[in-house]
Amino acid sequence: MKGLPLSPLVPLNRSPLPLVAGVRIAVGRAGFYKHDRPDLLLATMPAETRAAGVFTQHAVGSAPVDWCRAQFKAQGGAMRALLVNAGCANAFTGAAGAAAARASANAVSSATGIAPDSVALASTGVIGVVLDSEKIKSAMPGLAESLRPASLDAAAQAIMTTDTFPKWAGAETEIGGVRTTLAGIAKGSGMIAPNMATMLAFVFTDAKLPAPVLNAVLKAETAISFNSITVDGDRSTNDCVLLFATGQAPTPSIRSAADPDLAPFRSALGTVLKDLALQIVRDGEGATKLVTVIVTGAANAASAKRIARSICESPLVKTAIAGEDANWGRITMAVGKADEPVNRDRLSIRFGTLWAAKDGAVARDYSEEAMSRYMKGAELSIHVDVGVGSGEALMYTCDLTKRYVEINGDYRS
Amino acid sequence: MKGLPLSPLVPLNRSPLPLVAGVRIAVGRAGFYKHDRPDLLLATMPAETRAAGVFTQHAVGSAPVDWCRAQFKAQGGAMRALLVNAGCANAFTGAAGAAAARASANAVSSATGIAPDSVALASTGVIGVVLDSEKIKSAMPGLAESLRPASLDAAAQAIMTTDTFPKWAGAETEIGGVRTTLAGIAKGSGMIAPNMATMLAFVFTDAKLPAPVLNAVLKAETAISFNSITVDGDRSTNDCVLLFATGQAPTPSIRSAADPDLAPFRSALGTVLKDLALQIVRDGEGATKLVTVIVTGAANAASAKRIARSICESPLVKTAIAGEDANWGRITMAVGKADEPVNRDRLSIRFGTLWAAKDGAVARDYSEEAMSRYMKGAELSIHVDVGVGSGEALMYTCDLTKRYVEINGDYRS
Repeated sequence: MKGLPLSPLVPLNRSPLPLVAGVRIAVGRAGFYKHDRPDLLLATMPAETRAAGVFTQHAVGSAPVDWCRAQFKAQGGAMRALLVNAGCANAFTGAAGAAAARASANAVSSATGIAPDSVALASTGVIGVVLDSEKIKSAMPGLAESLRPASLDAAAQAIMTTDTFPKWAGAETEIGGVRTTLAGIAKGSGMIAPNMATMLAFVFTDAKLPAPVLNAVLKAETAISFNSITVDGDRSTNDCVLLFATGQAPTPSIRSAADPDLAPFRSALGTVLKDLALQIVRDGEGATKLVTVIVTGAANAASAKRIARSICESPLVKTAIAGEDANWGRITMAVGKADEPVNRDRLSIRFGTLWAAKDGAVARDYSEEAMSRYMKGAELSIHVDVGVGSGEALMYTCDLTKRYVEINGDYRS
Repeated sequence: MKGLPLSPLVPLNRSPLPLVAGVRIAVGRAGFYKHDRPDLLLATMPAETRAAGVFTQHAVGSAPVDWCRAQFKAQGGAMRALLVNAGCANAFTGAAGAAAARASANAVSSATGIAPDSVALASTGVIGVVLDSEKIKSAMPGLAESLRPASLDAAAQAIMTTDTFPKWAGAETEIGGVRTTLAGIAKGSGMIAPNMATMLAFVFTDAKLPAPVLNAVLKAETAISFNSITVDGDRSTNDCVLLFATGQAPTPSIRSAADPDLAPFRSALGTVLKDLALQIVRDGEGATKLVTVIVTGAANAASAKRIARSICESPLVKTAIAGEDANWGRITMAVGKADEPVNRDRLSIRFGTLWAAKDGAVARDYSEEAMSRYMKGAELSIHVDVGVGSGEALMYTCDLTKRYVEINGDYRS
């Protein structure tokens, strides 16, 4: 998939990532791809580090996700290294895949002296092929030797598969008046590209925070960022979002996620996660439009989210957007098929600030011309009010183009 | 959408439809389309007729579906006419749409003498536009005058929207040794084509059957035919399947759907409905492959159906099939994202008779060459065993091609 043209939605003018005290990184090549490109990322962190993870809900899952779930729990979040490979997802690989995951952690341990159970693993690439841990073992000494404090920008490149641009986002914030830094990278374009899997995101901070607090804030902020995007509704076996706090900044002790002193950090983390999530949508396979879908007036928040998801994942809605058509009939269809409470005679649909339908019928001031102009934009919003309650949700998606089918169906020809 | 090329999956060698005693039909033009094509179908039936309907579960629905639901119930199934129009779905049209539906029934009544409440209505076409019942009123006298016993083949043409071929299926069967006939027509390609809505099917028989029996058999047979197909997962506001029994054949009295004398009729009805349903999939927008998905080993039948649907509606599975790729990794993904009980270490996937994966890993005798050959076929089957129970389901779908995006997204350019 080398040489994919850059997504037209690539974000411009991103700031370089700040360094995060305590994080040492190295990028290398194990050879999971035939062509010459980095496919390994190693990060190590000091003993004070605490980490949290949110993992795929996928029923099949993968060996690295199984490994992380088990070790994050067993170690109480005291994880000190992260090894990521591209080119092989090590998913649907049974006992052999689990053994390969452990062997990878052992290889990191031998080269760095960090206990294997404190090594987080993440893999992305072909499903159904057991990870060749020998390749990782061979690459490890060189990789460990090149570990150094460095910006994560280059690391973002090493974890790409069908991504057309590397994804990163960072922030400076404070806890109790003490300055702290956040730096995150992510990968993902289609949820699963040609035999490739996965959305991965890794965020590092130098704040000192206990694992339960990290887990609570990561879970809450992921729900409204990564768990609110959908490119094609297809969910990966390997998805994970990991947050590492190295504890190198002298931030005051925080015992609860609800501590008001933590509010700026939570907000900054939320911003970084949302930025990364939107970069994934912007790089959605074949995407030409970034679409924000807002649902209000639902029975409750969960119902609103189900309706929003139904809109975001409807092929007919997505192809209409690709065709720059404000096809509110299809939105109506997608709302209805969600099987959620809806008041047909109150249903209202707005594109940007232009009403298409109001109170169950086409809007009186509907202007085809104004609407067409609006739909030519690269970033669109669709607001649907279903008129039964006060539940709200917001989701992000992209359009469905011939290019998506080409990337995912024509790759054999 | 005139001049769409014929689907490559069009069924050949279909027998012409048998006449059904008691059914008189007429095809005409109200002018819902600019170009010259039939867009109206009227059928009338004798006073003995009883009818049953299965309607869309869509939360928004449409005026004709609302009308039918109410009248079928109020009349105890004693419906005597059917008026179908193409070109306007009369959906999302509020009180004005309901009034237009009633006016249409009144127009049929004036021209035929049948009580308006015994007139079934079905509409397909643009959403959000109120049906212009004046056009129907004007066409009605001519239409009523041309009513005659005739084969439904021509009628199938009048109800098409983006369909590339007319859809019909018939059968001869018996109830208690007395011969009876079934003839059905249907329309639908994408669940909603460019601003067009709907899957419609109408089946006529000369059997004499009470409404509760008709309802029971129609509901049961629709579940395993029309409710087991999916082109794009998008559900219409106007979907309906109607069954009319004119009572003109001297079939013996049947009081229960479970009566063993009814078994051949049920089976024949099931065959007709399944044939019509598959014709819709064969005419799926842009379809080049007809795919049967069988799920076994699920916790129960409902779980199996949810897994089958997740496979059938996954864009990544559908594009892989378009690319003639037996991409079992994507099938695994689609199984997992259904959130149903699955035993990962027992999961097995077969394309036709070729195992791709067995007991949670790639099949030992997997042959890329044999698989590639199989995937070139126009009719494929995918069998997934999820290894937890004995629940089974079968669904039909088609592939997702660039042509689908073209039909649904590029129609403005």
